[in-house]
Amino acid sequence: MTDVAIIGASMTQFGEREGWVSDLLAEAALDCLDDTGVRAEALDHLYVSNMASGEFEGQTGVPNALAHDIGALGAYTQRVDQTSASGGAGIYAAWQSVASGASEMTLLVGGEKMTHRTTGETTDVIASLTHPHEYKHGVTLPSFAGLTARAYLDRYDAPREALAEVAVKNHHNGVDNPHAQFRKEIDRETALDSPLVADPLRLYDFCPITDGSAALLVCPVDVAREYTDTYVRVAGVAGATDTHVVHERRDPTTMDAVVKSGERAFEQAGITPDDVDVAELHDMFTILEFLQYEDLGFAEKGAAWEDTMDGVTARDGDLPVNTSGGLKSKGHPLGASGVAQGYEIYTQLAGEAGPRQVDADTGVACNVGGFGNCVTTTVFEVDG
Amino acid sequence: MTDVAIIGASMTQFGEREGWVSDLLAEAALDCLDDTGVRAEALDHLYVSNMASGEFEGQTGVPNALAHDIGALGAYTQRVDQTSASGGAGIYAAWQSVASGASEMTLLVGGEKMTHRTTGETTDVIASLTHPHEYKHGVTLPSFAGLTARAYLDRYDAPREALAEVAVKNHHNGVDNPHAQFRKEIDRETALDSPLVADPLRLYDFCPITDGSAALLVCPVDVAREYTDTYVRVAGVAGATDTHVVHERRDPTTMDAVVKSGERAFEQAGITPDDVDVAELHDMFTILEFLQYEDLGFAEKGAAWEDTMDGVTARDGDLPVNTSGGLKSKGHPLGASGVAQGYEIYTQLAGEAGPRQVDADTGVACNVGGFGNCVTTTVFEVDG
Repeated sequence: MTDVAIIGASMTQFGEREGWVSDLLAEAALDCLDDTGVRAEALDHLYVSNMASGEFEGQTGVPNALAHDIGALGAYTQRVDQTSASGGAGIYAAWQSVASGASEMTLLVGGEKMTHRTTGETTDVIASLTHPHEYKHGVTLPSFAGLTARAYLDRYDAPREALAEVAVKNHHNGVDNPHAQFRKEIDRETALDSPLVADPLRLYDFCPITDGSAALLVCPVDVAREYTDTYVRVAGVAGATDTHVVHERRDPTTMDAVVKSGERAFEQAGITPDDVDVAELHDMFTILEFLQYEDLGFAEKGAAWEDTMDGVTARDGDLPVNTSGGLKSKGHPLGASGVAQGYEIYTQLAGEAGPRQVDADTGVACNVGGFGNCVTTTVFEVDG
Repeated sequence: MTDVAIIGASMTQFGEREGWVSDLLAEAALDCLDDTGVRAEALDHLYVSNMASGEFEGQTGVPNALAHDIGALGAYTQRVDQTSASGGAGIYAAWQSVASGASEMTLLVGGEKMTHRTTGETTDVIASLTHPHEYKHGVTLPSFAGLTARAYLDRYDAPREALAEVAVKNHHNGVDNPHAQFRKEIDRETALDSPLVADPLRLYDFCPITDGSAALLVCPVDVAREYTDTYVRVAGVAGATDTHVVHERRDPTTMDAVVKSGERAFEQAGITPDDVDVAELHDMFTILEFLQYEDLGFAEKGAAWEDTMDGVTARDGDLPVNTSGGLKSKGHPLGASGVAQGYEIYTQLAGEAGPRQVDADTGVACNVGGFGNCVTTTVFEVDG
């Protein structure tokens, strides 16, 4: 199996953007190529992580359009869709393309354009990833999050403030991320007093609707050395699936697909959760940061809220989580989010994170599709 | 690189089907597993080739639903989309998953459910894969086909009857395929007298709108031997991209993505076009069978029509093409078609094709997305 490296990463400004998703994809793609000095003509494979350009824009075949736009007509193109985990699935696909020997230079670009549609339309598209019977009965992802948060707070005797602290921390981190959608501090009271959405969760427990794109350039380690000394290795990457019907799960406060994908990725990398220095977790809802933190093995079940309140996951803590600002403040352009997690870990491990830099040689990204229906976890390492 | 084998294949009845695409996918998946004796729990990866379940049915996350439905919750799932070449892209993804060592047992299932929508709605969804400016000006895939057919007939002094002969041949083959949508002979006059669609192409130059699904079970050759003596090797598989704007191409009668993907796949397999015994070509429109036949190197440019008229591509000819009936008579459920091409070649090479059996150790499938915007070509071999 070929050792796989990331030699470049980019992301666009996240937020409300003009243009088509194709424009956003081209922006991230060209930035990534420019930074590394790799020509578009040199790409063997070009993957696009995107959930719903057909539904949002009436456009499919977006990978073809991107290959045309950036001058990569020599490349093989394909769209990778795993709903809100499309970005992580893209990292896995890019890794497989290089590890299998099919490609010596793969560009992965994730993106979504959503803000031109109404919130209702957007919610309908996102809800299409749930089981149709759930959707028919009004159980959308936010309502699952509310039910799960209630169960978690009750079972683990956690204070409501702990969820607010996730939002406070991630907004604080986002201030130092020039690409983040929201670059503003919030305090705990602002989060706790914000409008109720799905009891006990309030507005500041939810990520926004976002346009944006991110890219990673992936190749064999042997090839990476020709371009840069600061490449990052993909030490482990794996995915897993949970029941499509959420209420059939054994425990509402555990996401088995997070557990399994984490175990597989850690095993491949030959590390344990204790070896991880920095993590990007899929905080589409604040409660999800707790679940992933525990299900990946960073703490016992029910202990994430205490670690958060104690500052363990803060930027100056023992295990900084979501130094990028997370989906909460950075934004969540569905197909881009998993790739942007990879961008953040790459940037931290390469020592290029500026004011939000932490000390890290090993990083993890966990990208969650649906309500844990499909998850990918990636372990990144730099020879430190 | 791990040697990759196909140990099982299945397809559902193609045509107008009841239910959701999830039902069709589950039917093909379970058939494939039943035939081989592989349990759903043993699957490492589960790929779904599908272009537009979101647009056709308002459902995304279909791979998760399938994993749940067939009891494959241990598997990693992902959707592979490359518009009408999603099936071929799925073969490539499945191959990469095994060749990279990520998976020891990958089930690929391709499917589409379309007939419940009106022809206008379906045409709109398919047209979304073209460049938006083409679509705005009314240049849909059928009109590209008409323009290309006119150029081909003119340049190569080919008779209109040669296009009709493709339809006659493929309908003849489809009679012996129990899964085909249309199992009826047609004669040349029927094709030539059918209603005009895009001059010079008439109704019988076009594939129908179809529901259906197909599956392939893929694993390392070493694992294949534990299950069967009749596995088929994936000797070569590759993809390529052409301009997204069709009129920017250098030659309207050549599809460069077919040329490149074919060259790459043949090189990987270490064979030449002369070594091929049977081929499934993407005859969405009759003219496309000529282009692929030539662009893959089975004949000089402009010679496909003569080979067809001379019976070279007939079932008892030197290089039988579309023994399945092709998209023309078998039907074209977008995401399923490339996988169903694989099913046909597997079945022929395994000697299980019944009344349509030909003598073949090496087969090729060519799956075309858009109007040649993205193409995958796969070379299959059996140790004969």
